This record gives sequence, C-alpha cells and structure tokens, in this order.
Amino acid sequence: MNNIEQLAKLIRYYSLVSTTEAGSGHPTSSLSAADLMAVLFFGTPSEASAKEGGFFKADLDNHENPNNDRLIFSKGHASPLFYSLYAAAGKVSEQEMLSLRKFGSKLEGHPTLEFPYTEVPTGSLGQGLSVGVGMALNAKLDKLDYRTFVLLGDSEMAEGSVWEAMASASHYHLNNLVAILDVNRLGQRGETMFGHHTEVYEAKAKAFGWETIVIDGHNIGDIQKAFEWATSENFKFQISNFKPKIIIAKTLKGKGVSFIEDKDGWHGKALSREELDRAVVELGEIDKSIVGEVSAPEKAPVESEKLKVESEDIKFTDYPKDKPVSTRKAYGNILPQILESFPNAVVLDAEVSNSTFAETVKKTHLERFFEMYIAEQNMVGVAMGFSRRGKIPFVSTFAAFLSRAFDQIRMSQYAKSNIKFIGSHAGVSIGEDGSSQMGLEEIAMFRTLLDSVVLYPSDAISAEKLIVEAVKHYGNVYIQTTRKDTAIIYSDQWAVDSGQSLDFTIGGSKTLKSSSSDVATVVAAGITVHEALAAYEELQREQINIRVIDLYSVKPIDVETLWRAAKETKKIITVEDNFAEGGIGEAVASAPAQISNIKFQISNLAVCKMPRSGKPEELLAYEEIDRAAIIKKVKEIHDRL
Amino acid sequence: MNNIEQLAKLIRYYSLVSTTEAGSGHPTSSLSAADLMAVLFFGTPSEASAKEGGFFKADLDNHENPNNDRLIFSKGHASPLFYSLYAAAGKVSEQEMLSLRKFGSKLEGHPTLEFPYTEVPTGSLGQGLSVGVGMALNAKLDKLDYRTFVLLGDSEMAEGSVWEAMASASHYHLNNLVAILDVNRLGQRGETMFGHHTEVYEAKAKAFGWETIVIDGHNIGDIQKAFEWATSENFKFQISNFKPKIIIAKTLKGKGVSFIEDKDGWHGKALSREELDRAVVELGEIDKSIVGEVSAPEKAPVESEKLKVESEDIKFTDYPKDKPVSTRKAYGNILPQILESFPNAVVLDAEVSNSTFAETVKKTHLERFFEMYIAEQNMVGVAMGFSRRGKIPFVSTFAAFLSRAFDQIRMSQYAKSNIKFIGSHAGVSIGEDGSSQMGLEEIAMFRTLLDSVVLYPSDAISAEKLIVEAVKHYGNVYIQTTRKDTAIIYSDQWAVDSGQSLDFTIGGSKTLKSSSSDVATVVAAGITVHEALAAYEELQREQINIRVIDLYSVKPIDVETLWRAAKETKKIITVEDNFAEGGIGEAVASAPAQISNIKFQISNLAVCKMPRSGKPEELLAYEEIDRAAIIKKVKEIHDRL
Repeated sequence: MNNIEQLAKLIRYYSLVSTTEAGSGHPTSSLSAADLMAVLFFGTPSEASAKEGGFFKADLDNHENPNNDRLIFSKGHASPLFYSLYAAAGKVSEQEMLSLRKFGSKLEGHPTLEFPYTEVPTGSLGQGLSVGVGMALNAKLDKLDYRTFVLLGDSEMAEGSVWEAMASASHYHLNNLVAILDVNRLGQRGETMFGHHTEVYEAKAKAFGWETIVIDGHNIGDIQKAFEWATSENFKFQISNFKPKIIIAKTLKGKGVSFIEDKDGWHGKALSREELDRAVVELGEIDKSIVGEVSAPEKAPVESEKLKVESEDIKFTDYPKDKPVSTRKAYGNILPQILESFPNAVVLDAEVSNSTFAETVKKTHLERFFEMYIAEQNMVGVAMGFSRRGKIPFVSTFAAFLSRAFDQIRMSQYAKSNIKFIGSHAGVSIGEDGSSQMGLEEIAMFRTLLDSVVLYPSDAISAEKLIVEAVKHYGNVYIQTTRKDTAIIYSDQWAVDSGQSLDFTIGGSKTLKSSSSDVATVVAAGITVHEALAAYEELQREQINIRVIDLYSVKPIDVETLWRAAKETKKIITVEDNFAEGGIGEAVASAPAQISNIKFQISNLAVCKMPRSGKPEELLAYEEIDRAAIIKKVKEIHDRL
Repeated sequence: MNNIEQLAKLIRYYSLVSTTEAGSGHPTSSLSAADLMAVLFFGTPSEASAKEGGFFKADLDNHENPNNDRLIFSKGHASPLFYSLYAAAGKVSEQEMLSLRKFGSKLEGHPTLEFPYTEVPTGSLGQGLSVGVGMALNAKLDKLDYRTFVLLGDSEMAEGSVWEAMASASHYHLNNLVAILDVNRLGQRGETMFGHHTEVYEAKAKAFGWETIVIDGHNIGDIQKAFEWATSENFKFQISNFKPKIIIAKTLKGKGVSFIEDKDGWHGKALSREELDRAVVELGEIDKSIVGEVSAPEKAPVESEKLKVESEDIKFTDYPKDKPVSTRKAYGNILPQILESFPNAVVLDAEVSNSTFAETVKKTHLERFFEMYIAEQNMVGVAMGFSRRGKIPFVSTFAAFLSRAFDQIRMSQYAKSNIKFIGSHAGVSIGEDGSSQMGLEEIAMFRTLLDSVVLYPSDAISAEKLIVEAVKHYGNVYIQTTRKDTAIIYSDQWAVDSGQSLDFTIGGSKTLKSSSSDVATVVAAGITVHEALAAYEELQREQINIRVIDLYSVKPIDVETLWRAAKETKKIITVEDNFAEGGIGEAVASAPAQISNIKFQISNLAVCKMPRSGKPEELLAYEEIDRAAIIKKVKEIHDRL
C-alpha cells in the first residue's frame, strides 16, 4: 500500500522546487490538484485485493501498452504536477525535475511529446477532454479495458470546446471516461466565472448527460471514495449505467503552503528561493526515498492483430472519361476502399457527411464512422486522441468550417498527429450558398503549419490517388475537395500521350500542357486547372502557347518543375480559387529561388473581391480567376514582349 | 392588428417560391420557424395598447435607428424566411424575392450585409448568439431600450461557441437578450443529437443561467404567450430578474407542406415546380396584398451624443531611451488614452489581461472593459456585435489563442467589422512556456483575410503609434505584440538623424540602416528587428554594410521601399519569428514584382523546427532567426559574390 500523504507531499515538493529552480511556471495550479492526482495514481479501492490494484492502471515501463489507462492534463500549465507524479513513481529523477523549462529538457513549460508520458501536448486550454473522448472511443472500438482520465481546470470550463466534448462523451455513452475538475476558484487574473460554486458545474455536467460527484479535493478519504465510484464499475460488462463520470473537486490554489493558498496574484509565478525555504518547512518532512507504485493493467500488452493487417490493394474507381464528377464525390468513393485496406483508419464528420460524401462508409464500415455533429473543435480533438492511439482519422467537413478548429489543428502539429483533414466546398466555385460556406482561407491555414502536407486535386482520378497517398504518409495532411463536378483529366491514355506517370506523389505536379514556345506558365490547382486548360485551348486558336501545371501538391511544392518553368517561359501566372495571401501564388513566388536565382515575372490571380452568391461560372468570372481572366493576363504579358 | 395566420402563410409562400425559383436553398428550415418569426414581427401582447406596439420594435425605414430591436438569424441557412419576413412587412418585393441566390441580388444564399436588414452575415453555425450578446451588452452600456433577438437552430446547439455565449449572457445578466430555439429535430443529414427532446435543451439552458419556456412552435397562441413572457418585463427598471431568456420551440421542419413536413432528406433542397404547385395548394389562399406592420420603437432616433465626441489628442508615453519595454506593455499604456479619446472604443479580453496588459483600462474605464473569460470564440462574436452597433472593440489575448476564433474572425471580414485584434506573446521569443503558447501562425491567419491590416511593432514607441493608427483606420486590424522587453528604437533624435518621419502609417516601413554599399537588405518585424540591428553592428565591424528595414506594416506592405531595396541591394533576407508559409518572407517575395520585374535573390529565415521551451535567446538561436543566423546568411550571400 502506498503512503498517499507522503507521496502527495513529495509531489508538492517537486512542483515547488522545480518551478523555483526554473524561475517560472505554475506551482499553485499544481498544488490544487496534487491530492487528486496522488490518489488517482497511488491510491487503491478500500476493499481492493492486491490483484485488482489501484485506480490508475498503467505499465509505466511500457507507455505504449494498449491496456494502459490514459491520463490527459487538459490544464497543461499544471505541468510541474504532471512531471512530479512520475517523479513520485520513480520515473523522473530529482535532477531531471530541476531541468524543468530549460532548453533541451524533456520537461517543457507545458507538456509536450518530449516527455514520454504525455498523451498530447496541452496548454491551449479546453482541448484535453476532446482528446479523452477520442481515446475512450478508441477503447470501445478496440474492445480494450483501459480507462481515460482527464484533469480539467475550472477556468477552461468557459471554453465551448469543453462542452462539445461533454456532449459527445455522453452521446457515445463513454463510461470508460473519467473527468476530474479541479475547482480551485482562481484563474490567471482573479476569480473564475463561478468561483467555488461547484453546484453550477454539477448542474451543467448533469444537463450534459454526465454522472457527477462533488468532493473536497484535499480530503484523501473523499477523493478515495470518488475514484472508487468512478472506477468500480466493470464498464465492459455492466450496461446499467453508460454515462461518463466527472469528479468535481473543490480545491485551493496553492494548497499546502499558507502564504500562497487561495491567494490572488499567484498564478504562473514561481516562489523565490526564500519563499521556497519557508514553503518546504511548512510541508514538513519529505521522504525522497519513497517510490509510489502504480498498478499495472491486468492484461498482457498484446497488440491488436487486426491493426497489423494492412493491404495496399486499393481498387480505384473506374470513372467514365467524359462524365464530370466532383472531387468530393471521389473522396466518398475511395473511402470505403481505404477503410478496407487500412483497418486502423476511422472517419469523423461534422454532420455534413452527405455533402462531404464521407457518408459512403456508413454503409460499409459503420463501426468506424463517428458522427461528431456540428462541433468541429471536438471533432479534431477526438481525432488527436484516436491518432495518438494508433488510428488514422479522416476528418471531413466543409473547408471553411475547419477554420473553427484551427487552434486544435495547431496543437495537432505538436502532437505529431496522423490526421487526414478533408475540406470540401473549396472556393467561390461552390456558387449560390455564398461567402460563409466558401473555403477561401484553408490553403493558407494548413500551409503555415510545421511539416504539413497540402493537397488539392483537380479531378476524381487524382483525388482518389492523392487520398491514398495521404493515408500512406505519416503525418497531418490536408486535402481540399471541390463541390462542383469537374471533368476527368487523367487516364491511362493521358499517361501514354504525355509520357508522364499516373502516380501522384506528394511534392509532385503534373505538366498538362507544354511546348518549346510557351509564352507563359499557368500554375493552377483544383478547379482552376480546368480554367487554365480552357484558356489553353482558346489561346491555341490564336497560336499562343502556354504551359499549364497542375500543382496538386501545394505543400511540399515541386520546386524543380516550377524552377524549370520560370527559366523556360520567364512568366508565371498563378490562378487560385482562394484568397491570395499564404496561397498558391505566394508559394510559387518563393519556390524557384530555392534552386537558384533566376529572373522571372509572376502574376497572381486569386479571390480579391468580396465573394458573392451566384453561379460558379459567374463567380469565377467576377473574381477574375476564370479562363477569360487567364487569357487576358497571358495577352497582357504577351503584348508587353 | 396584424393577421398573423395570413402573414405566416405569406411568409411560407415566399420561402417556397423563392427557393424553387433559385433551384436551391433551405425552404424546410425556413418553414419550421415561420410561425415563430411571424409572431415576433407582427404579433402584439394580448393586452397591448396601440401605443405599446408589438414584440419586435423597429423602424424598418431607418435600420440604423439606435433604438431598433435587433434580430439575428444565427441559423443563417433559413435566409428565405429572413427575407420573407421583410417581404411580408412590405420591404422586399415579390420580384426581389425571386432574385434569391442570383448573382447581383441582395438576397444571397446566406444573409450578408448586401441585404440592409442583416445584422451580421451568418451561415457558419453557432455564431449568432455571441453577436447577440455583443448587441445586448451594447444596449446596457449605452442605456438603450432595444432588445436583441437571436433565432437559433437545434443542430447548431452542438457548437461550443453557443455555450460560451450562453454563459456570457447569463454572467452579464442580459435580460435584454431573447433567444428563440427552433427545435425542428432534423439536421442536415438526419436527426440531431437530441431530436425533439426539448427537455434536454431546457435543462442545459437552465444550468447555464437562463430563464426558459418550452412551447409548441406552431401554436400561435403559445408563441404569443412566450413572447409576452420574454418581453413584458421592463428590463431597464426592474431588477428582480436579470436573466436572459430562451424560448424553446418544438417545431416541424417543412411545417405546412405535408409531403416535406418532418421528413428526412429535405434539408437544403428546393421544391420542384410541380412540388411547389402542390405545396401552394396545401397552403391555401395567399393574400399578397396584406402588409404586416412592425411596431416602431417608442423613442426617437437620437444618436448618442457621447459617441460623436472624438479627440485625437492622444498623449503618448514618454519612454526612457535606454530602458527596454515590451510592446504588449505599450498596448497597456496607450489603451486608456485611446478609450479617453474614442468614446466608442471598448475592450474585451480572454482572462489574460494581466499578460496582454489590457488590464490598465480596468482602472481608468472599467465600464468599457468586458471580461470574456477563456472563451475566444464568444469574445470575437461579441466584438462583432459591438462593432455592428458602432463601437470599436479591442480584442486581446495571446496571439496563439486568437486561432481559436478563426472562424469568427473569418466571418467578421464579411461583417465589415471594425475590430482591433491584439495578439500578444508572438513567436518562440516568449521562451519557457513552450510551443502551445507561441503565436506562430497568426501573421498568416490574418494576412489571408480580405482587406485586413496586419501590424507588428518592434518597440514601445512604434507600438503606441501603430495602435492609434489602427483605431483611426476603419476595418479589422491585427496588431501583434511581443512578450519580451525590447529596446527603444524610435525617438525624436532618431527622426532627426535618419531624416525620416516619426509617423507610422499603415502600409509604410522604416529603413533603419542604409548605405550605398549595402550587400543585402534584411527585412524584419517585431522582435527580429532587434536581431537585425545587432547583426548590422557586428557586420559593421567587418566593414560589411547591410540595409535594415522594419516592416511594421506586414499588410498592406510597402511595395516601393522593398522594390528599391531589391533593386539596389539585389539580395533580400527576411527574418521572422513565426512559421514561414504565409508570413513575412512570402509577403516580401511577392511584393517587388508588383512594381516591375527585377532580378533579386530572396532568403527566408523563419521558425522551421519544432519549437521548444528555453530562454528567448536560446530559442531564437535554435530556430536560426537570431543575429548569428542573419550574419551567417549575409556572409553566405556575400561570399558567393
């Protein structure tokens, strides 16, 4: 049996000394939850046999054991507590604790994947519960016994994303998910909206379909009982109660050190050396020799067989050459194939699956389709949770609405996620629905992220191939699809005629038209490829040759082909159905310089006027990104020669 | 007295014929709320004297009358209903109704500002209630009697932003805000999370501090009573009940036309001509000659005097020349001055005002400071509401957390808002707190928006000046501030020495170092300006001259100065403390070409490695965006000569 009081004291000690050594950090936010976390990690049910073990069951020597319980610190600023827990369990040395926040340390200011026990990086508040929903859904899907615990702060309960996750958890009956709410009353700059009124949080949680218990977060007996309540049920077999559970704990920020306890002005502030000395005296004798024991999961770490199976025998759709079909439809066509070949692929959609066409998998692989309703932030958070448990989540909605989850997407880059984002309804070419539904910023949004891949297919053939490329590539990939039906460009015959491969590699491009007398190169992607091809045909009639490049891989970009085009044709015209900044034009402008310094002229056609409702063709013309605008620009350049 | 039944029928008729004529749109989503809106617009309290008028009081001939009630269609896809309401009130002709969704029509697919009665464009769900909170707060602030009504759909209740707004409205005791929830059971692709279980919505709304009433949304008598309940109280003088109110109405999607009523598969689908004929028969006789009367507000449209006062007599802070101070601190210093000179400026902060330094105004202008807690989406939505009622909202939080509200920010561009976004804690130079807190994407995020202005000051002097420039500029402006103290660059002496003005105009730049023998131009902004200056000093010792440009206006960009630098120095090195794509490097790469085709070489130094925790200097060095990296790059280029 672990000595909880001594371990809690040790955890407080580490939280305090590490932050003082760092000269910054969040000791008081750590102290409020120290007792809660000490009991979670090191406590055992009162009538537990040794075999049953503690509340939190994890093999700390094998963090990837699929049977391990999961702990997410949604209040990531309490990272000193997070690291201290593992120090108390003998997994982090005191020496390492003192490296907190130093350059090169695994113990960063907020938890990151540098620290091996971090499930996902946190620090942007209100995201952890969604990740927990993802991990709990994963357990249900894989029929695994592990529980997911999420530590929430009270300030972050103002974030709507938390309530999206609350609704989602109850909708999916996630009785394997336990939230612990640390109501320490004080936010960064004073009292939270509800202070110590735990009854407000309880009423809200109940209304959102959760089971609740309210406790004194510093009473070890209370906490013990709460975790017994939250974990006693054998959720796998007992179906009487299928609700997620939340422990609402009234706590004091800075608990255990009188002069910072429940005091304003102590958020994100380390104690001075002198204050630390006083604090340590108050804590009383610390036994650094004790090592808390965390119970191992009952089951051996067998890896699920089915996840290992992976076939690349994808059957692509056979599209009639003369029948236009939208790239979003192609997504719907290939998705069941992908789920067939990749048993770890899952699909999430934000209540628009009949528009994104993710709905196809509902007929073929319903158990791996998750309806996330109109709650994009939670959808991406859930995807992060799935991804960290080895799944490949496909996340689809209108491109424009992915902007709703930009902060979660931003954090997913630090989580080294393997999410495939599919944004449909790109650009003004969606037509009548108007500006609110037009994806015009998402190329810029996804391009700016570290190591992101941005793909933008122009026809159904390339769409299917690129989606398969995306799933084979480890990492976050954004694929933009178009609402409108577009002509089929690629075919075996095309490959023969053009002498180019029908493979679509990430970082590549396709040169659709090319001659030795091209007066300019038009670089397009998605819908504008079709406008560029139409412009080519018209210009041909006037004996003007242009090169046309399908820049389906917007990031990484095909530097070499662009460099050659710049060198050979001297003029580049980019044309894109989105806003200019951060888009294709800017990507192309910077590209050739990466090879060498050549002189070329670049013109960018992009959406520059307030978008309107209307027919796709009218809007492409209005924004001057259609065939006529391309022809006009080519002639303008040509005449200047 | 208006004939509600006849008017509701007329509204249904217009909703149906306009969508059939358009061949697309959302008639069924319009029909479910037709009775609710008909009563709101044209109904009167049962005991009303003529003088008291109806529920909704607005002078439709003067939409800008500050006493007008406000109506926000958060479920923007019900735009046919929105437009039909005004048609029934005689403000839109049947001819105009038939232009719905056509290019050039004011009646766009989702409401936009083209239609004069649109408060804010909607269509990205879950945003309208936040806008309503902003408008209701504005009424309280200006002691105006108007009420704000928000029509919500049930599908959008899954969006967390709605719950942020719910919490915010109750926190601010907005008893002048009325939400109407149209529970029509069906979302886009089937049943919503809670179907017709109005009790779930009621429990949630109550838990979030709202007064509730549940009604049959097609029973005119019921609706009548609900609006009496919601509007009877004289909120200005009666303080017994200071809660916002929500009418939860059980409705049927497609109500009034049997073959689409409460039927799945009819979302966002217009009736065929043949179906329309059948529907019109079902509706019964339509009297197109009736014109519903909307009650005018009791008070005359006096414009608030205080809003007209505007002094530009801003007293800038006198910073000691040799004491570094952060640009975020400068924001805190100038803000009370701005509130003093601009009586229509308001300040919103997401519970980090002691870090952004927005807290200064709490001491000077508390009544215009709004604590939005950690709920960035609602903060921006509220700002949109304020902006549309003539205020200039300053919205501040960590730059990174503005990404949380990207969808709201995206919609604010279509609302022609006048919001000043201040994002602090830019870049890796924040140091120990690590990646989750680092603003690395926001330059790209704000740049890509239509007509946005992006400013990034490097010292406290330019920060104050640029913030004042921002407030004088009508439109959305993003100003990025830095956590770290930075040296004072600008002074009267500097102006004399450099022969440049101390004015900081939007679209300008400052050339800090320049000679006729510059081997390269370093273009920097914010923190990197200081690194560039340090690099300059070191290179001077080796007799290498570089030009240094402070690109404080990232958008619009100073094309001419950059063109000249490219022409004169042939080499440009951009250096920025953010991710590369969509950032300063790409902006600069595209700029000179706007003047003419010149040959120059561009190198970009930006954040390219996974950001870490550490000291600011360590992180700038690690990411190779510090003085050493600049010197290295200059020499690399120089040696190549």
